[in-house]
Amino acid sequence: MAAEELLAELRDLIRNREDRGIRGLASRLDPAEWADLVPRLDDGDVDALLDLLPADEIPELLEEVDPADAAVILSRLSPAFAADLLEAMDPDDATDVIEHLPRDQADRLLTEMEPDEAAEIEELRAFPPDTAGGRMTPAYVAVSPEILADEAIVALRQVAAEAETIYYVYVIDEDEHLLGVLSLHNLVLTGPNTPVSEVMVRDPIRVHAETDQETAARLLTDHNLLALPVVDDQDHLLGIITEDDIAEILEEEATEDIERLGGSQPLDIPYRLASVPLLVRRRVGWLLFLFVAGLLTSQVLRIFEDRLQQTPALNLFLPLIIGIGGNVGSQTVTTLVRAIGVGEVQLRDVGWVLAKEIAVGLVMGLILGLAGFARVGYSDGLAIGLIVGVTIAGVTVWSAMVAAILPLILRRINVDPAVVSAPFISTLVDATGLLIYMLVAGLVLSRVL
Amino acid sequence: MAAEELLAELRDLIRNREDRGIRGLASRLDPAEWADLVPRLDDGDVDALLDLLPADEIPELLEEVDPADAAVILSRLSPAFAADLLEAMDPDDATDVIEHLPRDQADRLLTEMEPDEAAEIEELRAFPPDTAGGRMTPAYVAVSPEILADEAIVALRQVAAEAETIYYVYVIDEDEHLLGVLSLHNLVLTGPNTPVSEVMVRDPIRVHAETDQETAARLLTDHNLLALPVVDDQDHLLGIITEDDIAEILEEEATEDIERLGGSQPLDIPYRLASVPLLVRRRVGWLLFLFVAGLLTSQVLRIFEDRLQQTPALNLFLPLIIGIGGNVGSQTVTTLVRAIGVGEVQLRDVGWVLAKEIAVGLVMGLILGLAGFARVGYSDGLAIGLIVGVTIAGVTVWSAMVAAILPLILRRINVDPAVVSAPFISTLVDATGLLIYMLVAGLVLSRVL
Repeated sequence: MAAEELLAELRDLIRNREDRGIRGLASRLDPAEWADLVPRLDDGDVDALLDLLPADEIPELLEEVDPADAAVILSRLSPAFAADLLEAMDPDDATDVIEHLPRDQADRLLTEMEPDEAAEIEELRAFPPDTAGGRMTPAYVAVSPEILADEAIVALRQVAAEAETIYYVYVIDEDEHLLGVLSLHNLVLTGPNTPVSEVMVRDPIRVHAETDQETAARLLTDHNLLALPVVDDQDHLLGIITEDDIAEILEEEATEDIERLGGSQPLDIPYRLASVPLLVRRRVGWLLFLFVAGLLTSQVLRIFEDRLQQTPALNLFLPLIIGIGGNVGSQTVTTLVRAIGVGEVQLRDVGWVLAKEIAVGLVMGLILGLAGFARVGYSDGLAIGLIVGVTIAGVTVWSAMVAAILPLILRRINVDPAVVSAPFISTLVDATGLLIYMLVAGLVLSRVL
Repeated sequence: MAAEELLAELRDLIRNREDRGIRGLASRLDPAEWADLVPRLDDGDVDALLDLLPADEIPELLEEVDPADAAVILSRLSPAFAADLLEAMDPDDATDVIEHLPRDQADRLLTEMEPDEAAEIEELRAFPPDTAGGRMTPAYVAVSPEILADEAIVALRQVAAEAETIYYVYVIDEDEHLLGVLSLHNLVLTGPNTPVSEVMVRDPIRVHAETDQETAARLLTDHNLLALPVVDDQDHLLGIITEDDIAEILEEEATEDIERLGGSQPLDIPYRLASVPLLVRRRVGWLLFLFVAGLLTSQVLRIFEDRLQQTPALNLFLPLIIGIGGNVGSQTVTTLVRAIGVGEVQLRDVGWVLAKEIAVGLVMGLILGLAGFARVGYSDGLAIGLIVGVTIAGVTVWSAMVAAILPLILRRINVDPAVVSAPFISTLVDATGLLIYMLVAGLVLSRVL
């Protein structure tokens, strides 16, 4: 609601061309809140707003706006103006925006830009966006090993405005090989005339440009660093990943896992920006696969058609039984896939994981089986109650087992365990659950009838 | 596998009491990797290891180990030694460990500790662990507004070893009210004789101690800060949350969301440490609820018992149809719950969300419905094929709609949308999906037969 009011207020300010009011509003908000508001304006209002804002505030705004939104905004501006804005943005953010533009527009803007700024972006564009290289910024501070601590501080002061972090200074040789790192902390606490080579940390932790962004994020986090240097095969310093990227990386990766667990391919862009055809493409593949797998259930039922016709009451509990199998499988698989994802469970843990999940399945199977026996025995007679109760218990244990093993097997054959989604495990245990149902029914009925 | 080998190597080093070898191994590893290895040792080996490590390295190790594991290790040591270790740890980490001990043991250790260190922990323990207060550390650097920039740097140097971050210095009045903040960056770039009150940022962004940890994490991230001050009702500075907590907070919250989406209550502790009774307790409640809701499906089938007995082929596709409903619902709900969770979709977006999901549902319903019609029409005749195809299309659209609206409704009534798990939405659309199936069957059969 507050956001609705803010949006209305901003719209009024723009239409009355009150530039001071607009800047007052912007300064009252978080950068993120402000950046969130702008893409919600109509195109005309956005253009008017850019006209009213001081030129040096627009690049900052575009850095905070979602890159896909920023690309839409830039594509409506004159190429010369858009190129100026891109030059003023942090190179890693500018690259993200460029990557969201159609190729011809992107190339057009790059030719409009200053050659060296365009070259920086071209270099960053060479790496896939979900790698360390795709995430890094070339805006780091580097010095050669001979200079003194207070000269390094002077160097820092000069570039402070353009660097992404001034908390670390990297030490490189004349060929740009990474030699060491100095923290601002160290520089301040050290004697002014000490050569940096004496106080630097040698061979600092680094990642290769092609390392997965999630690995880089965890490395940075595990070592409590504020930035991580990114190097190429020859150990040349290419850029840095800073701690302000970490939250975004971890959220992106968690979103991907969640979408996979829900049974779709990751969208890779915000839901708000996902078109209907994109959503369909990301979802329909798995649905068709699961549809084909689901046809197995009708094959199982066809085999036991006579038994179901002799005892039609069994039909009534088909959905209930496969539902329970799916629910237990979904609980187990999501917990495990997450535990694997954060590195808590590994392949060698398969033994105790399986033992634990079988134990949990047995206890829950007992509880649910008794509930099923009592409820169905009351309404449909003891024989049917017994069949349903025993089946529920069996399906619960079976489902927990399958859901415990499958993600670890996939991990073993190098498939992302998150493809074992809740729908996948449900479908998988549907057919086998029905088989258990029919076998239990056969056993019980042959003794009772 | 590498971890297995490292573990074996460490075990050998401990048993041969090679303390230098152990320290060599520790220095070769990430702090996180090293901390991961230790809890995997047998109890006896852990005790021997603590004996071999230099006393000042143990607190650092315990800070990195999972607090639940650290609590187990401490509980086996003499209270006096355990208290010494806790005193040497960062107060926020020590509090986490204390919170994982049984109450009587925790109290025993606190009485063994130096009174002022124990008091710090008591204060931190007063806040729930998932709030800003529960996450903060009191190890910040604060100065009064009159002192000069270079005096502030001297103050920093003195406490550098104990402070969690030296990148920010907080300015407080004599009653500890928060007045402003200085970054090390500012201090270094400013003239040495400037009073800090002239260069500090006034009224910095802060959070109340009872603010949810996720809100605090997002605030810190959105503003690209390295630390966030935590205050009480009277605006007294109580502590700070530093950027190295952010990754952990965001991962914890994502894990919670994922576990909820899978249909269990969040574990709140690592899976590895979750006992069988705990896992059962977290899962069985939802299973029983879903079992009761699932009984609705048998009620629906009971109503249409005659129709199913007249056309037994309809029974064959019960699992297939409810499976598709569940799969579509699961895809939609996970994507949306995540979008709501990261703040991308809000209540006011219900209109376009619903429109988008209905459009997606229609397209996917058409594709899946045609596939169902073709496959079942081929095997079981056109009439059954038509019924199954139309039902699949209808269930797909219906399921997408319910999954799109429900999380937003829950948000409206202040229930966490993540309780709409994949199992929940599946169970919900099971009974209604069967109703659609039976109604379509009635319509088609009345014309065909």
